[in-house]
Amino acid sequence: MKKIGFEHINITDGFWKIKQDMVKNITTESVYNRFAETHRFSALKCTWKEGEPDMPHIFWDSDVAKWIEGVAYILIKDKDFPLKSKAEEAIADIISNADEHGYFNSHFLVTDKDKRWQWRSHHELYCLGHLIEAAVAWKDATGEDEFLRAMCRFTDYVYHIFVEEDSAAFVTPGHPELELALVKLYNATGNRKYFDLAEFFIDKHGNNDKDCDTNNDFRNDYYNQDEMPLKNRTTAEGHSVRAMYLMSAAADVAELRDDEALLDACKRVFDNVTEKRMYITGGIGSTHRGEAFTVDYDLPNRTAYAETCAAISLAMFASRMQAIEPDSKYADVVEKVIYNGFLSGVSMDGKSFFYENPLEIDPDFNNVDTSVREKRRMPITQRVEVFECSCCPPNVVRFIPSIAGMMYTYSDDTLYVHQYMNSEAECDGVSITQTTAYPADGKVKISASGTKYIALRIPSWCEDFSINKTYTVKNGYAIIEAEGNDIEIDFAMPVETLRANRRVHGCAGRVAVMRGPVVYCAEGVDNCADIANVYIDTKGSFELSRAKFLLPNIQTTGYIKPETKKLYAKADAEYKEIPLTLVPYYAFANRGTSEMYVWLLQK
Amino acid sequence: MKKIGFEHINITDGFWKIKQDMVKNITTESVYNRFAETHRFSALKCTWKEGEPDMPHIFWDSDVAKWIEGVAYILIKDKDFPLKSKAEEAIADIISNADEHGYFNSHFLVTDKDKRWQWRSHHELYCLGHLIEAAVAWKDATGEDEFLRAMCRFTDYVYHIFVEEDSAAFVTPGHPELELALVKLYNATGNRKYFDLAEFFIDKHGNNDKDCDTNNDFRNDYYNQDEMPLKNRTTAEGHSVRAMYLMSAAADVAELRDDEALLDACKRVFDNVTEKRMYITGGIGSTHRGEAFTVDYDLPNRTAYAETCAAISLAMFASRMQAIEPDSKYADVVEKVIYNGFLSGVSMDGKSFFYENPLEIDPDFNNVDTSVREKRRMPITQRVEVFECSCCPPNVVRFIPSIAGMMYTYSDDTLYVHQYMNSEAECDGVSITQTTAYPADGKVKISASGTKYIALRIPSWCEDFSINKTYTVKNGYAIIEAEGNDIEIDFAMPVETLRANRRVHGCAGRVAVMRGPVVYCAEGVDNCADIANVYIDTKGSFELSRAKFLLPNIQTTGYIKPETKKLYAKADAEYKEIPLTLVPYYAFANRGTSEMYVWLLQK
Repeated sequence: MKKIGFEHINITDGFWKIKQDMVKNITTESVYNRFAETHRFSALKCTWKEGEPDMPHIFWDSDVAKWIEGVAYILIKDKDFPLKSKAEEAIADIISNADEHGYFNSHFLVTDKDKRWQWRSHHELYCLGHLIEAAVAWKDATGEDEFLRAMCRFTDYVYHIFVEEDSAAFVTPGHPELELALVKLYNATGNRKYFDLAEFFIDKHGNNDKDCDTNNDFRNDYYNQDEMPLKNRTTAEGHSVRAMYLMSAAADVAELRDDEALLDACKRVFDNVTEKRMYITGGIGSTHRGEAFTVDYDLPNRTAYAETCAAISLAMFASRMQAIEPDSKYADVVEKVIYNGFLSGVSMDGKSFFYENPLEIDPDFNNVDTSVREKRRMPITQRVEVFECSCCPPNVVRFIPSIAGMMYTYSDDTLYVHQYMNSEAECDGVSITQTTAYPADGKVKISASGTKYIALRIPSWCEDFSINKTYTVKNGYAIIEAEGNDIEIDFAMPVETLRANRRVHGCAGRVAVMRGPVVYCAEGVDNCADIANVYIDTKGSFELSRAKFLLPNIQTTGYIKPETKKLYAKADAEYKEIPLTLVPYYAFANRGTSEMYVWLLQK
Repeated sequence: MKKIGFEHINITDGFWKIKQDMVKNITTESVYNRFAETHRFSALKCTWKEGEPDMPHIFWDSDVAKWIEGVAYILIKDKDFPLKSKAEEAIADIISNADEHGYFNSHFLVTDKDKRWQWRSHHELYCLGHLIEAAVAWKDATGEDEFLRAMCRFTDYVYHIFVEEDSAAFVTPGHPELELALVKLYNATGNRKYFDLAEFFIDKHGNNDKDCDTNNDFRNDYYNQDEMPLKNRTTAEGHSVRAMYLMSAAADVAELRDDEALLDACKRVFDNVTEKRMYITGGIGSTHRGEAFTVDYDLPNRTAYAETCAAISLAMFASRMQAIEPDSKYADVVEKVIYNGFLSGVSMDGKSFFYENPLEIDPDFNNVDTSVREKRRMPITQRVEVFECSCCPPNVVRFIPSIAGMMYTYSDDTLYVHQYMNSEAECDGVSITQTTAYPADGKVKISASGTKYIALRIPSWCEDFSINKTYTVKNGYAIIEAEGNDIEIDFAMPVETLRANRRVHGCAGRVAVMRGPVVYCAEGVDNCADIANVYIDTKGSFELSRAKFLLPNIQTTGYIKPETKKLYAKADAEYKEIPLTLVPYYAFANRGTSEMYVWLLQK
């Protein structure tokens, strides 16, 4: 199956149009300003001298690269996007400061010069990966290929060092990302050498004698994605972003070289993540220690790490898998991520970000005096505009403008509709228009041409739907004859309460409220300051109310027990009813610090 | 008020007789053997040389000292106790290897010789404290005073260094304990200098210019009990054992010098601990980081640290307070500790110990592959015979033989009965006999003489009791005229369900089962392997059944929901009933690794 690139799709209205406008009009500039203030752009000029403050950090280039990539995606739709010149300046600095080998890294060019290719953990290849993605996007957006040629030259140098000379102190990237970028570079240039290099890294992970990391604390083989050859994997381990970037590349390579064993590993890892190691929000990586996966069903809510980048990386992996295997479970996960654990990463005003996306907040515990207990063990309770390790903000900048790229795949005779967004698409003789307020409701009108069949994903959350055509269901998709049809779908979207698998102990006795793909939460600001102890009745009434944050709020009845001042008291207190307001999870923490719970006690 | 020392009390039958026999016949020898194997006894000979294995550790002397103290307490009741000779050998080594100043420390005498009094954190004064306690006990048990005189000489040297010369690198013990030992030494010798030294340390804590600890991680001023002068304290902070040992000494000093301000601080700290920072088991110190108190109501169940020594230290503090202020809350806490969070620290066979006493265990999480997640973050699930840091086992050895010392205090005309144990006591013209199976049931017969009034603690858990005499209730005690009376008390002891304060979020929606002072728990070995998800009905039936572990088990009905293989599923499943067996918390983990929960979901 082929993908329809986002460049062929226009989101014309509704939920994601609002978010794309936000990124275009606010987020991109805000991130630019924060990065400029924190010297990430000036670092590209490579004029830093020993002894000066603000030494360029080893991964700053990747931050800038993702921002450039985002700008390029916006430029594809709007060639007059004013931040173009800022991107051009950064690109010019990168090109002009590359050394005689084509090597560029704003840290290692000005300091630690003798450490080039010596420290596996130090992100040189990771930065290159993001620079390649930016360069490919820039060429697509502007037609200018100088940046792309510069990155090809850099990559040729890497090929020489790692494949021909084997002269680096390590074999594979400590932080995977380059692997998937190399597939993009191969697709953009047609140069087989770049695919060879992608294969080289994919096959060498966990499968060479050099990359034996000393096990210091959590930075072990799992952390660096080296616990075993990828094709043997059955579980997702270690640093969750690294794991999912790498599995994304593995899926690309498996597809391109028709590698059944590697593809099977991708499927096993995907199932392990999504059936045993994923929050209901689509968040992954449940511990801050190594930003990592832990063990099956270990999904604590209050200390959930669930990095915004990890959510993005899971969507990236899932969207690759949906293009390989027709099974709606992949697109279901994309949907879960984009409406919840990803989107919570950015504030409603588009300026601030969460790195961690917990499912519970109690300010009295989260904001505890650091001299008594280390603050860094608990997620922050309010988004901020920039982090020291600021990978997430520019990842938002590139992800939202390109989000439509996960909507469609097509084979010879079938167009798969994975996501529902109000939009128009035209590609390769296939055209499709969706008219919908989804996910405000579940009604979607579709008209399509250029394909014999159209396969409509039936969302996993949906138990009751109607389509105004004859259909057969296969692999979670309703398949209908497309030509000349005006298709009307109605996915019933009642409020539902969900429980977690019994092994997820933090959710025992608790339920989450969802409507369609959207997870809801209760915040202190709308309710009492004791959400931890509020019960809801799963058989009670759940009414939609005015949308404060794009989608309707939900009103239900909460039940609390009278307060006791004692530490432990007789358990015979009776419930008292209170009105309870729920808001979409993605919108939490937009009105100041407040309690927040996704999982509420079940009465 | 005066205390009746345990040496005047014989526990003649029942619960604590069984435990005292266990310590005498099994635990003391088992701990001796483990300590001998791990070179703690041979270290006292001070023959270790640089380069040899098994370098004496800075706190090994304290381990041995507590063991000697325990042997002394057993010798008081049984002068033929066979381990006497082992204790004598250890004492002889300590006396003969002290240096010309009287200084003894099996680490600093053989290595780091130039570091004497240089490292506040290195337990020299802590070890001296335990050696003093052992020496006082040894004199009481045997009449021999050579050990006591040796420790007086060592203490004189400490007085010279810390008070007269002020030549140490620090002012107060990093690990408090010496302070309370000095009060004991003063009481044993009548030498005012030792009380002066106790006062010196008590008054200098948090109140001098030298003890500014560098804040490395959690080892900060709180950890070392230096956040402020003791008399200003309102909360319990830092390392919980250090805090409670220090507050025990503070209570002693406050009483002896009639210091209202310091006593008020003791009361505030006691209330803070017991009203906001104590598990229902009496466990304290909720985090492994610094073995410390954290913030009010932060009492996570699965990662509860709740060190066995911390429970002992809380009982020590509470039993001092009960001798100062007639308020049953102090003895209530002693009772809570001794039947629960302390007693869980030792196995039913008397040989193995918990350092940490969690309130939840899920073996699948606790025993996780250490390469994936650090094991030390989770409590172990089975007791062991010795730890590298083995403070808890010998603390059990000294605590249980002397436990009766917390039973009684008396003033001119009133004998206070704080604890109920089948026993006979005779002291200072007062005699009292208790005939009871407590806490198997709540019936106690008391005959007493030599006191005008007798004050019987009405346990805080008891709502319904009868006494066959006229009584008035004051400060939680039923006060009756004692002379010539045969008193019969019946504390009704139904099974009760308790809830936690709403701020204890780990207990939200959950209840604990207690009978009398004893907390119960559900273990996987008796039930299904999914205790985390078992609901109980607080209005349901709770029947006593055969005692597996000294006290009856409890039978009730549990409710579970059918399993789902999905990670998240609709919350509409109905309950299924299962029989549920509860055992006393102190007895958990005596039948192999198993799930365990104190707090069960409330239906």
